[in-house]
Amino acid sequence: MTASIRKVAIVGGTHGNELTGIYLVKKFQQFPELLHRSSFECETLLANPQAIALNRRYIDRDLNRCFATEDLANLELTGYEDLLAKEIANRLGDKDRPKFDVIIDLHSTTSNMGLTILPSSRQPFNFRMAAYLTTLHPDVRVACGVRCSQDDPMLRTLSLLGCTIEVGAIAQGILDVALFQKTEMLVHEILDYIERLNLGKPLATPSSLTVYQSISSVDYPRNPSGELQAMIHPQLQFKDYAPLHPGDPMFLTFTGETIIYRGEDTVFPMFINEAAYYEKGIAMTLTKREQMGIATA
Amino acid sequence: MTASIRKVAIVGGTHGNELTGIYLVKKFQQFPELLHRSSFECETLLANPQAIALNRRYIDRDLNRCFATEDLANLELTGYEDLLAKEIANRLGDKDRPKFDVIIDLHSTTSNMGLTILPSSRQPFNFRMAAYLTTLHPDVRVACGVRCSQDDPMLRTLSLLGCTIEVGAIAQGILDVALFQKTEMLVHEILDYIERLNLGKPLATPSSLTVYQSISSVDYPRNPSGELQAMIHPQLQFKDYAPLHPGDPMFLTFTGETIIYRGEDTVFPMFINEAAYYEKGIAMTLTKREQMGIATA
Repeated sequence: MTASIRKVAIVGGTHGNELTGIYLVKKFQQFPELLHRSSFECETLLANPQAIALNRRYIDRDLNRCFATEDLANLELTGYEDLLAKEIANRLGDKDRPKFDVIIDLHSTTSNMGLTILPSSRQPFNFRMAAYLTTLHPDVRVACGVRCSQDDPMLRTLSLLGCTIEVGAIAQGILDVALFQKTEMLVHEILDYIERLNLGKPLATPSSLTVYQSISSVDYPRNPSGELQAMIHPQLQFKDYAPLHPGDPMFLTFTGETIIYRGEDTVFPMFINEAAYYEKGIAMTLTKREQMGIATA
Repeated sequence: MTASIRKVAIVGGTHGNELTGIYLVKKFQQFPELLHRSSFECETLLANPQAIALNRRYIDRDLNRCFATEDLANLELTGYEDLLAKEIANRLGDKDRPKFDVIIDLHSTTSNMGLTILPSSRQPFNFRMAAYLTTLHPDVRVACGVRCSQDDPMLRTLSLLGCTIEVGAIAQGILDVALFQKTEMLVHEILDYIERLNLGKPLATPSSLTVYQSISSVDYPRNPSGELQAMIHPQLQFKDYAPLHPGDPMFLTFTGETIIYRGEDTVFPMFINEAAYYEKGIAMTLTKREQMGIATA
């Protein structure tokens, strides 16, 4: 990064039943001075107002899958979230004409993912910022989607820089003060990191970072009609980021049979038992754990 | 109880996003022999099919508040759940003409309520059965609604005998194998208890039972527009059934102020931070803890 960061967007309510980000953004809207830093502007957005009002993830379609460039350009997509995504892209800027340098999108999950940073792209800034956060909180984890690029359909990809903050385990539709406070803390630390970078006094980052790189997802065992046949195995439930070795239990069927992991390599599952992913056919995402070198800014 | 029990109904999916009961009932429907006992018939019901299909608590209105006698008789109530309640009352029998002797309704909660039995009425059978379960599992708790009678609007009140089984903490829309198995175990133990009673060889019950008797509910602090101003205090979150003493922290506002419990007596909150109760204006239900003598059958 040579150019400085001038505009940052903090987004909540991309999913209308993830209250942590929604109430944190409402707090920031009530007390905008909390976001004030000397070297850049910060704006907030509650992304999906109708879903928030109904306390649902979405109305017609998952908003956080509506930001593929081709979908934003497709005028035939006219569902509530399709139109909303176009409106948000207009406000935050299209991928090729961003109006914000950094977007931070606040999410929560029923998976036991603690504090996870999902970078918007593979830009070095994103990994340096995440690496900085791990120096403050060794329990912060950094996970990349398979592509981890602006080709992804998530809201965060409207800018190259930034991330999703994913906290859990927490049920949809509730606030947990511990996760609320930790999310708030991470937002402030990100803003402070940007401030110091802008001021030419960058905060120290470690020389390497552990990254959980998504490889693939695994669906629940289902019958031919698509009905669930098994649950996450008790030895795997709430064990996001723990190693899953070949032969380890993965699912337990309703009739009590264990289904093991048949892969050849040890993997590190995340998004284990995320409520919103049952309908997407995802019981968990498998990642490999990698060490990444971090160059100084 | 002098008359024997001839028909038992096991109900799941009264709330369409509480998967534990839904998938347990589906399992029983696939393997009906699991419910077979020599002295009575057992039927199953998935109560709210549309809500189950959409993975929502309800479509128009909480089905588990539609069984007040006056509402069942009110032909002007024609929402989806209003009509569904009339259909279910027709199948399971009206309160004054029950077709089932015992109804067991399977629920889950985002509150940390472990395994809770909510009796359908104050009939001695219900408390004896619950007391029996506490001898098998000291962590089973028994909680009564304010009235705990057939005047309540819950589905379970279609019969005098029976209960709701409420398990948690679990997010809406997910299965947790541990809670699934514990719910299944409780259902079997209830059926076994009934079987032995019918056969004239009742299982031994303790002479007293701890009951958490609901007194009142407490809403979240809100501003005049109804917006939440605080979260459950971290010292209270997940502490269902623990004593709350006068002066103990109850809520933490978004700006960090602690709001204390100002009652005069120690109480034992339950349904702390239940997702579905935000809209009902219930942050928790306060109970008093009582010892109840149990007469032998």
